[in-house]
Amino acid sequence: MSKHLLRDLDNLKRELLAMGSMVEEAINKAMISLLDRRPELAKEVMSGDASIDEKEVAIEEECLKVLALHQPVAGDLRYVIVVLKVNNDLERMGDLALNIAERAAYLCSHDSLGAFLGFNRMVELVRSMVRDSLDALVNLDVPRARNVLETDDEVDEINRDMFGRLQDLMKDNPETIKRAVQTLSCSKHLERIADHATNIAEDVIFMVDGEVVRHQQVV
Amino acid sequence: MSKHLLRDLDNLKRELLAMGSMVEEAINKAMISLLDRRPELAKEVMSGDASIDEKEVAIEEECLKVLALHQPVAGDLRYVIVVLKVNNDLERMGDLALNIAERAAYLCSHDSLGAFLGFNRMVELVRSMVRDSLDALVNLDVPRARNVLETDDEVDEINRDMFGRLQDLMKDNPETIKRAVQTLSCSKHLERIADHATNIAEDVIFMVDGEVVRHQQVV
Repeated sequence: MSKHLLRDLDNLKRELLAMGSMVEEAINKAMISLLDRRPELAKEVMSGDASIDEKEVAIEEECLKVLALHQPVAGDLRYVIVVLKVNNDLERMGDLALNIAERAAYLCSHDSLGAFLGFNRMVELVRSMVRDSLDALVNLDVPRARNVLETDDEVDEINRDMFGRLQDLMKDNPETIKRAVQTLSCSKHLERIADHATNIAEDVIFMVDGEVVRHQQVV
Repeated sequence: MSKHLLRDLDNLKRELLAMGSMVEEAINKAMISLLDRRPELAKEVMSGDASIDEKEVAIEEECLKVLALHQPVAGDLRYVIVVLKVNNDLERMGDLALNIAERAAYLCSHDSLGAFLGFNRMVELVRSMVRDSLDALVNLDVPRARNVLETDDEVDEINRDMFGRLQDLMKDNPETIKRAVQTLSCSKHLERIADHATNIAEDVIFMVDGEVVRHQQVV
């Protein structure tokens, strides 16, 4: 590998990690805002989204430059393509955090539903999935990527459970309907953030092992 | 451009269009299943999803081959990257169609909510967006791509309206809650399919005009 390609790939990795940190922070703030009823954090997420969007565009341009300039092949080519895909996933995770923040801002200004029992566990799992998927990418750590895939099943289960419990709440007290629907959306968005972390983990496994785990059932 | 690169790019375009047709069909079947209460169509969507997934993997591999073999630059490079991104969008649209089909299957087997008034218009718009975004890609037709961006605003508005009306329905009759929540999800998924069509249109504009319209407000 040429020295220049090596330097550019390293730079790409650094930029992607910076993007990952921005998105992780947005997710954390959105969830704390929701759980601890802190609207000021929701506002921070809203005002920070533009920087995430700019970063996505910059990283994609950087990938195109690396491809055009160095015309990498084999592992290096696959790496750049994975960076492109992960970049896309991260931007969407940022959008989902923004969406959670918007709903958190609404929920903070209304009476608490007190129905967040399953959320704490879900948030904890999703945070670890996001972190692990990025760590797996940086260290090309397949076992860690496989962990992410397994955790996703538990997140799906908690999301289903949240849906059931919130529907019961709405039935028992129709006054809660609007807030419960907003909370349902937060749960769903969190579950989708987990799906994006899963996408990243699958791309890592593919890059390292050449095995397509997308669209397969995890045993 | 070499003859072989030209042939491979043409082939890529054909494959992507085939994928687009599969996804369009899945969306149409899922929506007819929902609107006309035809569970057998929902089942067809469910059993067809695996082929869409396989196609996505095959197209991505094909893109990597073209990049490695021909090392395209400038417009050709950007084209291959756009195919990669659109391929990803299409696969997710297929997933959303599957999700709608699953909810349609549930709703078909329960009493009708009769609250689909806004859905017909929304389905019509989303269908046209999907078709137009793919046509814009094939013909590098920027005005058509811009149409897609404008239509997305109307879809967002109908989705918000659906949320309001379904919440009222739940309040008036708590017996409808479970069905209304399933219907809300269908509306949300449809809105997300429109978002993916918008992504495709934005990529077309970027490819042709070099203008980043992502993350900008449409005036």
